[in-house]
Formats: sequence, C-alpha cells, structure tokens
Amino acid sequence: MNELNPQHTEILESISQANFMTNNLWLLVATVLVFIMHLGFAALESGFVRRKNVVNILFKNVMIISIGLLSYYIIGYNLMYPGFNPGGIFAFNGFGLTPPEGGMGPSNGDYTFWSDFIFQGMFAATCCTIVSGAVAERIKLEPFLIFCVLFVSLSYPITGFWKWGAGWLDARGFYDFAGSTLVHSVGGWGALAGIILLGPRKGKFKKGRISAIPGHSMPLAAVGVFLLWFGWFGFNGGSVLSADPELVSLVFVTTSMSAAAGALGAFIVSYIMYKSYDLSMVLNGILGGLVGITAVADSVSPGNAIIIGIISGAIIPLSIRFFDQLRLDDPVGATSVHLVVGIWGTIAVALFGKFEDPNVGQLTDQLIGIFSIGAFSFLTAFVIFWILKKTMGIRVSENEELQGLDIREHQFTAYS
Amino acid sequence: MNELNPQHTEILESISQANFMTNNLWLLVATVLVFIMHLGFAALESGFVRRKNVVNILFKNVMIISIGLLSYYIIGYNLMYPGFNPGGIFAFNGFGLTPPEGGMGPSNGDYTFWSDFIFQGMFAATCCTIVSGAVAERIKLEPFLIFCVLFVSLSYPITGFWKWGAGWLDARGFYDFAGSTLVHSVGGWGALAGIILLGPRKGKFKKGRISAIPGHSMPLAAVGVFLLWFGWFGFNGGSVLSADPELVSLVFVTTSMSAAAGALGAFIVSYIMYKSYDLSMVLNGILGGLVGITAVADSVSPGNAIIIGIISGAIIPLSIRFFDQLRLDDPVGATSVHLVVGIWGTIAVALFGKFEDPNVGQLTDQLIGIFSIGAFSFLTAFVIFWILKKTMGIRVSENEELQGLDIREHQFTAYS
Amino acid sequence: MNELNPQHTEILESISQANFMTNNLWLLVATVLVFIMHLGFAALESGFVRRKNVVNILFKNVMIISIGLLSYYIIGYNLMYPGFNPGGIFAFNGFGLTPPEGGMGPSNGDYTFWSDFIFQGMFAATCCTIVSGAVAERIKLEPFLIFCVLFVSLSYPITGFWKWGAGWLDARGFYDFAGSTLVHSVGGWGALAGIILLGPRKGKFKKGRISAIPGHSMPLAAVGVFLLWFGWFGFNGGSVLSADPELVSLVFVTTSMSAAAGALGAFIVSYIMYKSYDLSMVLNGILGGLVGITAVADSVSPGNAIIIGIISGAIIPLSIRFFDQLRLDDPVGATSVHLVVGIWGTIAVALFGKFEDPNVGQLTDQLIGIFSIGAFSFLTAFVIFWILKKTMGIRVSENEELQGLDIREHQFTAYS
Repeated sequence: MNELNPQHTEILESISQANFMTNNLWLLVATVLVFIMHLGFAALESGFVRRKNVVNILFKNVMIISIGLLSYYIIGYNLMYPGFNPGGIFAFNGFGLTPPEGGMGPSNGDYTFWSDFIFQGMFAATCCTIVSGAVAERIKLEPFLIFCVLFVSLSYPITGFWKWGAGWLDARGFYDFAGSTLVHSVGGWGALAGIILLGPRKGKFKKGRISAIPGHSMPLAAVGVFLLWFGWFGFNGGSVLSADPELVSLVFVTTSMSAAAGALGAFIVSYIMYKSYDLSMVLNGILGGLVGITAVADSVSPGNAIIIGIISGAIIPLSIRFFDQLRLDDPVGATSVHLVVGIWGTIAVALFGKFEDPNVGQLTDQLIGIFSIGAFSFLTAFVIFWILKKTMGIRVSENEELQGLDIREHQFTAYS
Repeated sequence: MNELNPQHTEILESISQANFMTNNLWLLVATVLVFIMHLGFAALESGFVRRKNVVNILFKNVMIISIGLLSYYIIGYNLMYPGFNPGGIFAFNGFGLTPPEGGMGPSNGDYTFWSDFIFQGMFAATCCTIVSGAVAERIKLEPFLIFCVLFVSLSYPITGFWKWGAGWLDARGFYDFAGSTLVHSVGGWGALAGIILLGPRKGKFKKGRISAIPGHSMPLAAVGVFLLWFGWFGFNGGSVLSADPELVSLVFVTTSMSAAAGALGAFIVSYIMYKSYDLSMVLNGILGGLVGITAVADSVSPGNAIIIGIISGAIIPLSIRFFDQLRLDDPVGATSVHLVVGIWGTIAVALFGKFEDPNVGQLTDQLIGIFSIGAFSFLTAFVIFWILKKTMGIRVSENEELQGLDIREHQFTAYS
Repeated sequence: MNELNPQHTEILESISQANFMTNNLWLLVATVLVFIMHLGFAALESGFVRRKNVVNILFKNVMIISIGLLSYYIIGYNLMYPGFNPGGIFAFNGFGLTPPEGGMGPSNGDYTFWSDFIFQGMFAATCCTIVSGAVAERIKLEPFLIFCVLFVSLSYPITGFWKWGAGWLDARGFYDFAGSTLVHSVGGWGALAGIILLGPRKGKFKKGRISAIPGHSMPLAAVGVFLLWFGWFGFNGGSVLSADPELVSLVFVTTSMSAAAGALGAFIVSYIMYKSYDLSMVLNGILGGLVGITAVADSVSPGNAIIIGIISGAIIPLSIRFFDQLRLDDPVGATSVHLVVGIWGTIAVALFGKFEDPNVGQLTDQLIGIFSIGAFSFLTAFVIFWILKKTMGIRVSENEELQGLDIREHQFTAYS
C-alpha cells in the first residue's frame, strides 16, 4: 500500500484546495453583505433625521466607510490581528498589509489573507456608523471625521484584539461570536460618550417635557432596516469563518428567528406603553433582535434564539424611554439598540449558549468582557470627543442647528 | 484491489462532503436573496399607495416577515414537509423544529435541515406580502395580521405539501418548479378573497367611472421591482435545491429573459391601449415575466422563456383593466401579476416544458393543480376574512380612510 | 500501479467537477451583483435629475436592462464571443444562443455557457445606462431606446470582441481586466456623442454663466452609489471568471481601497476648489475610484490601488468643471466618471500593473486600445444619434422640457 501514498496525498491536497475555495468564497460573499449594511445604516439614519440634516448624515456615512477602510488598512488590522502575543492586552504588527506566505490557505486556514482583511475591514467601519446616528443633527463634520479615524484605527482594534485577536479576554473564555460587545456595544459606548458631551438637540427637552422629533422619511428608515437584516446574514453567517454547512445554516436560522421575535417583542411592549402601532419601535425591535443574537448565534437553539429576540425587542421601547428620562438625546435610538441590547446579548451567551468547553461563556467572564471593553471604549471615545470639544469645538452653532446642517455645512439641500 | 477500498471510500466521502458544502452554500445565498424580496414588496407597495397610508403598509410588511417566519417555525414547515404520507392530502409532523439525524447531509440530500427550513420560511411569508398590496389603504391592521398568521401557518403549507411535500398533486405529475401556483397564485387567491370582502377604496369607482389613484412615489416602486428581480435569482435559482451548474445557470437565463420580455410585452400592449409610456405597467410587466416563468424556469429553453415572458407582460394591462371593470379594486395590481399570470405560467408548463418523464406537466394535471389549489386557497382565505369581518370588522371607518391609516392607526406620518 | 488508474481518473474527474460547481456558482452570484448595478444607476440618475423628469429616467433604466438583455441575446453575445477569428477585428456566430457540447464545463472552462451569457449580458446593458444619465432631462424616449438597441447589439460587442473575444487588441497585449475602457469608456463615449448633438439643458448655461441644476433627491443618489459599489464586487470579482481564492480576494481589496480613496480624493480636491463639503462630488469620487481600478484590479497591490483611487477621485471635480467650461451639459457627471476616469484607469494599467508576460499592458498598447475603442464607439454613437436627429429628432420641445418629461411623455408624476 505504500506505493499509493503519493497519489493519495495529492488527491487529499486537491480536495483540501476545493474546500478552501468554497470556504473563501463564502467569506467574500459575506463581505459583500456586510458592506451593504453601511447603506442600511445610511438609509436608517437619514430616514430618522429631519429633512434639513439629510445631506449631512449621508455625507458622514459615505465618508465613514471610506476613511474607515483606509484607517483599518493603515493601522487597525495590524493592531487587531497582530498574529502574536496570545493572551496579551496589546500588540502591533506594523503599518499597511503584508500577506503571509501561503495567504491563510489550506495549510493554515480556510481563507486568504486578503479575504480576512476585507471582511474585518467592513466590520470595523460599523462602529463609527453606530455613533453617527446618535450624534446626528448637531455635531460638526470635521471633529466627527477625526473621531472616526481615531476610533477605527485605535480603539476598536485594541478591544477587538482582546477577544478575536486571541488576547487576554479570549484566554479567559469570554465569548462573543460576531460582536454583540466587540462591535455593537463598542459603537454604543462611543455614541454615549458623544451624546453626553454634545448635549441634546434644541427642542428635544423643553420645560421639563420630552418632545418626539419625528424623522423625515419612514420609507428610508424601513429600507435601512431590511438592508441591515439582509447584511446581517453576512455579519453573523460570515463570522463562522468557513462555509461549514451545519454552523452557517444554524446561524441563519437563529439570526432570523431572533430578528423576527425582536419585532414581536417591540410590537407588544410599545403597544402596551403607548397604545399605538409604532413603526419606528418595530424597526428598532428587529435591529435589537439582530444585535441580541449576535454574540451567541452559532451556539444556541432556534427556540432559545426566539427568547433572546423577544427580550431584545422588548428592551427597545423601555431603553429609549430610559435614555429620554436621563435627558440623553439619541435621534435614532443607537444607544438602546447597540449598547443596551449588545450588553443583553453578551449576557445571554452565559444563559443560553451551549459550548463543548465548560470554561467558555461563563457569566463572570462575560461580565468582565462587557465591563472591560465598555470602560476602555467609553473612556477612549470620551477623551477623544473631550479634546476635540476643547480645541475645535464639536457642536454647530445654535443658528446652524436651527437652519439645518445641510445648508450651512454643505450649501445644499437633500431635496429640491 | 480490495485493499484500496477503505481509502477510496474515504476519498469519495470527502468529495461528497465538499459538494454538500457548495450545494448548501448556494441554498443559503438564495435564502438571502429571497429575504430581500420582502423589501422589494414593501418598497413596491409603499410606492403604489398614497402618502397617507405609507406607514401602514410598511408596518404590515415588516410584521409579515416577522410573524410569517415565527408561524412557519411553529407549525407551517411541519405541515408542508411532514416527511411521510407521500401522495396524501394532509399530514403533520408536530410543533417546532427537530433536525433529523444527519441533517439532510450527504447521505440524504444536498443541504442541512436548517438551510431547508430557512429557505422555505422566506418563501412562506411571501404569500401574505402579495395579499397586503391588494388590500392596502382600507384594511384594519389587527385582522390583517391575524389573517397572515392563519394563512402562513395553515393554508399555504397544506397546498404546498400537495406538491413540494410529495403529496397527491406531486404523485399525479403536476409540475410547479418554484411556485407560479404554489406561492404566487396562492397569494393572489388570498388577495382576491380580501378585495371582494373589503370592497373598493372610496373614490376608485364613482358614478360608473374608474378613477386611477396614483401611487405616491414611483422611485420607491421602481426600487421594489429591481429588488424583486434581484431576489428572484434566489427564488428560482435556489429552487434547484443544489448548485448544479447547468440547471442553476439555465434558470438564471430563463428567469432574466422572461422578465426582460415581460417589460417589452407590457410596454407594447399598454402603449397600444393607452398611447402612453406607462411606468407602472412596465414595472408590473417585469413582475409578470418573473411570475410567469417561475413554474417552468428549469425545464424550458431561453427562446421559449422569451415567449412566456412577452405573454406574461402583455396580460398585465389587460388583466388590470379586467379587474377594474369587475369593480375589484387592487391598488398594486397583485391579482393580475400573481394570480392571473401565475395561472398562465402553470399552464405554460404544459405548453413549453421539456421533461424526461412523459407523465410530468400534462395539461390536465396542470389544470387540476390550478383549480384544486385555487379552490382551497380562495375558500380558506374567504372564510378567514369573512369570520374576521363578522367579528372584529376588517375595514377601517370612512373617516379613517379619508384621513389616512397612518394618522389613525399609527399616529404617525411617513414624511415630515 | 496501473490497475489503479481508472479509480484515480474517476476521482480526479469528481474533484474537477466539484471545482467547476464552485467556480460556476461564483460567476452566478457575481451576475446577481452586476444586475443590481442597474438599480444603482437608476437610483443615482433619478436622484440627480429634477423632480419633473424622474418617471422618464426610471422608465429608461427599466427598459435598458430589458431590451439590453434581449438585444444581447439575439445578436450581441455572438458578435463579442464568436469563438473563432482570434486576433481579428470582426466575427459573428449567428443569431440566438446555442450552447456548445459540454457547456464550457470542466473540459473547456470553469463555468457553463449559460453562466457566461448571463454574466456578460448584465455587463452589456451597462454601457447604455451610462449614456442615459448624461442625456437625461431633454432626450426623446423613442430615439433613445433605438440608440440603446443598436449600441448594445452592435457597437459594444464589436469593441468588446477586440479584447475579451480574443481579437486584435488582445493579441497586441492590451489589458483591460473588467472594463475601464471596454465598458465604462465605451458608455462614456456614447454619452459624449449624445450630449454634443443634444445641446445643454435650458438654463444650464445662460449669459455666459454656469448654473448648477441640483438633483431632486440626495438620498436616492446615495442609495445608488452604495448599490453600485456593492455590485462592483461582482463586476470586478466576477471578471476573474473563477472563484480563485487569491485573485478574487485581491480584487475585492483593490476595488474597495480604490473606491474609498476615490471618496477621499474627491473630498480633498472639491474642498480646495469650493470650500464646501460637496456630497455629489464625494459620491462621484467613489464611482471614480471604482471605474479607475477596474482595468487592473487583479494585477495591482492594495497600496497602488489607493494611489489609483485617490487620483481617480481627484479627477472628478476637475473634469466636471472642464466639461462645464466646454458648455457640455452632463446632469450626472457620467462623462467625467466613466469616460475620463475610464481612460485614466486604462493608463494606470501600464503604470502600476504587474504581469508575468512583459508584453501585457505596455503603455503604447494601452493608448492604442483607448484610442481605437474610443474612436469606434464615439463615431458609431455619433452616427446613430445624428441619423436619429435628422429623421425623428432626438430632443423634446422647449415647452416639454420646461414642463418636464414626466407629464408630457408619460402623463404621470413621480410623486403625488
């Protein structure tokens, strides 16, 4: 039988190459899906702001994906996946990209180095997109773009490294499958720092009363939410990092069931609270369901995914009221959707996750992850925004806010 | 040679696993594409209704996909694919989902159990989305949502089982590749029952004249149609249920050629009828081309697909006038697109389909399928709507219709 | 060992079939992505025109994809890929489609004949979509549709054959990976011919001054650009014509980095020129980055892709001013984005491309390609438009232009 081995080895190598091609293809298709989430956020946020600030929010979202990808290329990726210092808190692998020998092919992975970079790059810019919605209608453009470059280049990758780059949280057994904490809460903490330092929009809280400031286009907002769900198949499904049939298909089911249940949870609770069929609550309920399942989508049954989703959706109207009562003004509800539900989803890992290794996803470690990443992200964002506030200022003038940012920052209107 | 067999078997199993992964991946990508059809319908329908009813139609479409997936999870899937009773008219496999051993892997199929469920689940909710457009601008929200739960949980899966679950129509040789009848006509029959019991919108038929009530946004409607075509690559292409290169690529060609020809057919006939370049007719012509080819997309030449598509498109303006003359008011033309062209497409199977088995797709069996499924779906929908009408009422008050459903049911406007 | 060969051959054939399936699948997914670029163009163009011409531009874009696919099916594909006459300037393989034995399967390729046709068909219609934006708001519908049929049936395929059909430019070593010249410049030359013969819109150039005529919806335009970037993953990634992991993933990275850098380049230059954050410039900068990288996306490093992209984006505001100063009126900037940057991208092949064969991508050959294809496309388009102008007229009446094409050509308004 020995004489067969060369043929046998060659055949097994061919099969391995075939699987490599399929796995890599799925990561690339998932990249395309995550990319379109940036349109989802752009549509959602521009639908939820007033007509006079639409060009501004579109401009920001277009620039975020662009400078986000460039920043992540120059620094971020090498901070997040330095390839050494396992268990560590910080490491850096130089500027720009140099593909390793073999490019993460069959011998050391299921996809190429380029596939890994572009998939992770699409994730990275997301954290600033989350911020842009919360600080909308009053932040100045230049400081916001500077914040984005710093947040995507430095803050997001360092906390990302702690788990996905095999750093100290990963070593502890902290689990966050596709980023309830690492992406969504991180963006949510950045958003919270921003809205604290910015203050509320004029007219939001006057004479002790909370005024709803309705968005200018519900169809745009709905388009955004459908596209985000669409993209989430890549966000969660691609995070399997291979085309493993059982895992990817399970992730599709848990992600969808949680999104559907999120709509139902928000529908029921907002109806109880307001006796009204509130479209914006149901839309945010779907997003809540998606954020909530993200940390555990590959390790939970569809039935439990429905429970996670219903709770995620139910949290939305309660959390939005909570932030309103704190006089924290978030025009799109990003802090509720991404921060509060992101925390819930990370806790749900400990409650519903099924893992072979009993050290994975323990409640203590989940809480340590939530707090350490939350503290780091919030403080970094707060310091960046604070310095920008003291130097160039972060808020537009009262007059500009009244007239709208489109006319004053862009000399343009969204519609004519 | 006997000593080689263990290696040989192991290698063939590895190749089978590789193909399983690719086939399963295509079904998942197709799922994502079918999902976005729900945004397509939401955009199309909200574009075709008046400004005052936009939030309402968006709310319905967001809830349909959510409660549709949940209903199909709880009951529907197990009614449609019970896994036993071949040739039967009814069977049920219990509540919720329990994946079989092996999960439809290499030994018993090309995809996992989860992939099958989520792909079929995306289809299921479609039948209610079709109804929502036809009954728009006058139906009450709660009874409509109750109708959806019942239609997706019970009616759609039972008739679906007759063919795709290997029930009695399948045994007869009835052919419906991806659902001209099983999905589109079923939705169309539900729509017809609804508009009969609801009556027309105020102002549609007055003093014996038919008034066109134009939609509020043609860009939204056009976005919807492009997204539906986009999603149809998954709807028809995924219905191959594997990534078979010849079949899937043929389906892509026939589907696209029929859609393109549908635009042309509607263009020509509507120009002859009205001497005008009517955008809404051409948009519905594309949808007609897509519905018409759906029953036979895998078993027809591209040349014949063009013929099917031209006829499908030509039917649209004629059918819309026909329903108008019957005083049946359908704001988006769903009965023409999905019911009438769905019937035509199912007949076209007998005229143009090429099958190896001569017992498949006979005209008699196609007609039996059309009538039996039509009768069941129409009667079920009619009874559900009738009971809802007699108990809670299905139509909003005249005053609410005048003011718009957005303000009255949602205390919200789509634009501000 | 000889006795093993039958098994060995059978196994290698199975592996080859598995790879065929994966490669073919990627070409089909890429087809879906290129298809949605037609929605991208429709949204972009309708966002950039005035409210009174929106139905007209949507109607054109819906008809272009439809008659484009039909024309390419009947004639175009067989002119572009005749399968003989290598090195030639013209060849034709008959009308309609007849798949070869084996259908481009494992023995002679990585995908089926149907996959090749539908992927190329989605490309073909693009060249007219580019034209439609430039001639918007003043061209008559019928002559425009006639132009499209002729341009897609005859002009685009002949120059396409010169390179991609293995014609004379291919034999010289001219390189154009995915069509900076073959698709984008070709469309751009058609657009230039059209706007020269049509003349500017009323009010664009009055009393020696250039008036900006703002588009009616920036959200629609932004949706369009995001969808175009999304689709470009298929346009460039699919042009690898296989799922080769290294190549497709490199193409994803270079395409995205160039698009991101294009936004930055346009941002900087337009800010310097106008001291304003101009959303339409940044949107066109992204498209510039995408067009610029298209000729060389598979043969350039990500770092050089950033350089190509920045220059592409920087060209946009300069080129738009240049055409304005020539009194050539292009409402969407298509000539700048597709023609000027298409030329730049084709030159960039010679400056940055890395090829194993030193005869590929030489500057001389790139220039010969640019000029020969440019001359042929411009002259063909000019002659077609000129004949149409002399016979049926190509420009709407002054009155119609003032009232808007929607009311006069379609008896319809986009919004109500």
